[in-house]
Amino acid sequence: MQEKVLMKLQREESAQLERLGRFLSIPSVSTLPSHKNHVIQAAQWIRGELLGMGMEAEIHETAGHPVVVGKWHHRPGRPTVLVYAHYDVQPAEPLGLWTTPPFEPAVRDGKLFARGSSDDKGPLFMHMLVAEAFLQETDGLPANLTFLFEGEEEVGSEHLPPFVLAHREELKADCVLISDTTLFSKETPSLVSGLRGLAGIDIIVKGPRQDIHSGLFGGAVANPIHALATMIASLHDPDGRVSVPGFYDQVEPPSAEEKASWEKLPFTGQGFLDTTGSPALFGEKGFSTLDRIWARPTLEVNGITGGVQEGHKTIVPALARATMTCRLVPHQDPVDVQKKVVDHLRRVTPEGVTVEVSMEQTAPAALTRPDSKAAQLAAAAMEEGFGSPPAFTRMGGSIPIVPALEQALGAPVVLMGFGLDTDNFHGPNEHFDLENYRRGLKSLVAFWSRLETQGL
Amino acid sequence: MQEKVLMKLQREESAQLERLGRFLSIPSVSTLPSHKNHVIQAAQWIRGELLGMGMEAEIHETAGHPVVVGKWHHRPGRPTVLVYAHYDVQPAEPLGLWTTPPFEPAVRDGKLFARGSSDDKGPLFMHMLVAEAFLQETDGLPANLTFLFEGEEEVGSEHLPPFVLAHREELKADCVLISDTTLFSKETPSLVSGLRGLAGIDIIVKGPRQDIHSGLFGGAVANPIHALATMIASLHDPDGRVSVPGFYDQVEPPSAEEKASWEKLPFTGQGFLDTTGSPALFGEKGFSTLDRIWARPTLEVNGITGGVQEGHKTIVPALARATMTCRLVPHQDPVDVQKKVVDHLRRVTPEGVTVEVSMEQTAPAALTRPDSKAAQLAAAAMEEGFGSPPAFTRMGGSIPIVPALEQALGAPVVLMGFGLDTDNFHGPNEHFDLENYRRGLKSLVAFWSRLETQGL
Repeated sequence: MQEKVLMKLQREESAQLERLGRFLSIPSVSTLPSHKNHVIQAAQWIRGELLGMGMEAEIHETAGHPVVVGKWHHRPGRPTVLVYAHYDVQPAEPLGLWTTPPFEPAVRDGKLFARGSSDDKGPLFMHMLVAEAFLQETDGLPANLTFLFEGEEEVGSEHLPPFVLAHREELKADCVLISDTTLFSKETPSLVSGLRGLAGIDIIVKGPRQDIHSGLFGGAVANPIHALATMIASLHDPDGRVSVPGFYDQVEPPSAEEKASWEKLPFTGQGFLDTTGSPALFGEKGFSTLDRIWARPTLEVNGITGGVQEGHKTIVPALARATMTCRLVPHQDPVDVQKKVVDHLRRVTPEGVTVEVSMEQTAPAALTRPDSKAAQLAAAAMEEGFGSPPAFTRMGGSIPIVPALEQALGAPVVLMGFGLDTDNFHGPNEHFDLENYRRGLKSLVAFWSRLETQGL
Repeated sequence: MQEKVLMKLQREESAQLERLGRFLSIPSVSTLPSHKNHVIQAAQWIRGELLGMGMEAEIHETAGHPVVVGKWHHRPGRPTVLVYAHYDVQPAEPLGLWTTPPFEPAVRDGKLFARGSSDDKGPLFMHMLVAEAFLQETDGLPANLTFLFEGEEEVGSEHLPPFVLAHREELKADCVLISDTTLFSKETPSLVSGLRGLAGIDIIVKGPRQDIHSGLFGGAVANPIHALATMIASLHDPDGRVSVPGFYDQVEPPSAEEKASWEKLPFTGQGFLDTTGSPALFGEKGFSTLDRIWARPTLEVNGITGGVQEGHKTIVPALARATMTCRLVPHQDPVDVQKKVVDHLRRVTPEGVTVEVSMEQTAPAALTRPDSKAAQLAAAAMEEGFGSPPAFTRMGGSIPIVPALEQALGAPVVLMGFGLDTDNFHGPNEHFDLENYRRGLKSLVAFWSRLETQGL
C-alpha cells in the first residue's frame, strides 16, 4: 500500500509541482492590507483542491483572514491527526534582490524558488498531496485527518486560538502534526522540540511639526533620530545582553539532558556565518550560538526609518520610527516582556521629543514532548524518509499557534518540518530544496503507514 | 526715475508672478540625478528671460549642473554689482504633506506656495525683474550688473568656486549681492553678517548578506540597526553637546559687540517653538537659542533607514544607513571636522558589523563686513523698503559660495534676503510672503538708485 502511494507521488511529480506553482503564484501576504484579496484567493484555491480530492472543506471567516478546515473522518475508532499549516506569506520586499520574481515560481539547481515555497505553502501542499495519494491509490487514509490551514501566521495568528477554542470538539485530535520548521541541516534531519515566542513593539519619536531646515533650526531643538538612536542603543549592553530591567527574569534554561544532546550536533560557527553572511558571530556573552538562538530571548530592531531616505537633504526630521520584536523562551510571559520594554523605552526617552509606543503581536514560546508516542512514530517515519534517525533540536523561530493548539486540544504536537535554515524564510530568494521535498513526502507517507499498524 | 521703476513693478505684478510661476513649475531638484534635465531646463528658462530683457546671457557647462552668467556692462567707470542666486531646489518629498503640489505654484493667504518660491528662485527672479524695470523704464541701470546663477547650491556648489576662479576677470565686481537668507522676522528686517558652514558624512553599517529571519538567526549575529544606533547615540552627550573629540577645537566665539546686539533682538523661545512645532527647546547646555543656531556648530543626522520600512517583518536587516551633516561656525575647517567625525565613528563601531563611511559636501562658514560701504548702502535701501532699519544678524544656514566669492573677487558680500524662517525652506509647503516680495523689490530698487547717487 505504502509503495503504491509513493509511486504515484514520484510518477506525478512534475504535475504536482505545477499545481504547487499555481498556489505559490498567489501573493497571499497577510501583513499588507493591500493583499487581503490574495489571502482570500489562496484560501479558495485550497478549498477547491480539497473538494477535488474528495475531502470535506470549509472556509471560515474570522475578524482577520479566513481559516480553511478540511476533513476526512471515515475511520471511526481509529486515531485522528490534525495537520496545521499556514497559507499566508511574508512580504517579498526588497524585490530587487530576487533573482526571479517572488510570485513567479522557478526551479533552479534542484530548488523551487518562490515566496512561501518553504514557509509554508510548500509543506502545506505536501500534506495535501499525501492525503490525495492515499485516497486515490488505496481504500482511504489509515486514520482520520483534519486540516487546519490559517492565513494569519505571519501576523501573529490573532484569530486562530479563539477559533480553535470555539471549534474544539470538531477539531478534536490525538496528535497535531505541523511542517513549518527547519531541519538541523540537510545531512542531519531533526524534529523540533522547542520554539521561541514573540513580542512586538513599535515606537514613533516625534520632534518638529514637519521636517525643518537644519541650518535655521538645527542645534536648538531635539532631533528625533538622535533620540530614537539613544533609546535603541540603551536596549543592549556592549556584550550583547538585553539591558531592559527584568528582561531575563522568567527565563527557564534548557535541561542538562537537552543541552548535552545539542553539544553532539555537528554545528560549526563557520557554517552559521556562511549561511548568514555576517562578518562575525556576535551575541550574549557566555552563551554558545545554539544557546543564543534556541534557549535565550532576544530583542531585535527589525526596521528603522526617519528623515531623508534618498540622497541628501539638510533637515531635522519631524519623526523617526522603529519596529522591534523580542524572541522569547519557555516560561516568559510575552505581555510582561512587552511591558518591561515599553517601560524601559519611556524611562530612557531623552529630552525634547515625544514618544508613542504600541504593543504589537505576541506569542508564547513552545516546548513539545519528544517522549510522546506521536513523536516517536514521527521519528521512525523520518528515519525512513531521510535514511538516518532525526535529532531533537529546538528552533529559534516562532509558530504562535503551537502552544494554543496543544492546550486547546490536549494533544501532543509534532514539529516535522522539511525546510533548511538556508532556504531564506522571510528573505529574498526563498526556496525549497526539492530533495528535501521528496524525502519529506516519503516521511509523511511512512508516518501514515505506521499509524495504520501502530496506532497512537 | 525710482518712481517709474517702482510703478512698473506694481502695475505688472500679476503678470510677473505668472512668469515666476512658470519658473517655479520646473522641478530643478539638483540632488536627484533623475531631475538633471529639469535643472538644465531651468537654466535655459533664465537665459531666455535675460536675453528678452536685453542682457547678455550665457549658459556655462560644468562637470555638474550649468552656471548661467548674465551681463549688462554699459556704465564704464561706474561700479559693478555681481548678483549671485541659485535656481536649483531641494527635493519636495514627502509629497503627501504639501497642501498643493510643490511644482504647481499657488497663492493662498498672501503667500506664494511652491518648492523654490523663497529658496531661491523667487529672490533670483526679483533681481531679474528689478533689472528689467530699470532697463525698460529708464536709460539703463545705474551701475554695471553681472548675474551669476548656479544650479548646485543645494548639493554644495562643488563646481562653482573653480568656475569663479577661472572667470575672475569677467566676474570682477565691487560688491556681491545675494538674496538667499531670511529676515529676522517680518517685523524686524535684517541683513545677515554670518552663515554657518557644512560638512556631510554618510555611513552604511553592514551585517548579514541579506535580511535574515530573526528567529532562526537572531541573537547570534550583530544587528546593523543596533550598531548604527549605538554609533549615533555616541555623537552627543545628554546635554546636547557633540561628543566627537576635538569637534569644538577651532570654534571662534562671536565678538562681545555682536553678542550684545543679538540680546537686543525681539527673540522669544515660544515664537521659535511655534515655528518649529517642537515640544521643547533643546540644545547644547549653557548657550542661548540664538547662540545655538548662529554661533555654535552642530551635528544632525538628517536621515536613517534600515530593514523593515512598512508593516512588520521579523528580520535582522542586512544593513542600516544614515546621512548626517555638521553645521560649522567661523574658523572651523570642514574637512578637519569631517575627519574627526569619521575617526570617531570608526572608533565606536561595535563588534560584528562592517562600516563604510563617506565624506560628502563641505563648505566653510562665512562672516561678512557690516562696515563696508556696500553693506551700509544696503541697510539704507532696506530701511526704505521695509520702513525700519535692518538689524545685523547671523543665520544658521549655509551658502557654500559666499566665502569663495569673497576670496576670489575680493569684494564685500551683502546678504540681503527677503524670506522668513517660517517659509519652510527645504520642507513641505515652502512659500514666499508676497508682502516681503513687494518690500524686497522696493529695497532692491532703492539699492540701485542709491548706487546712482552714492557710488560704492
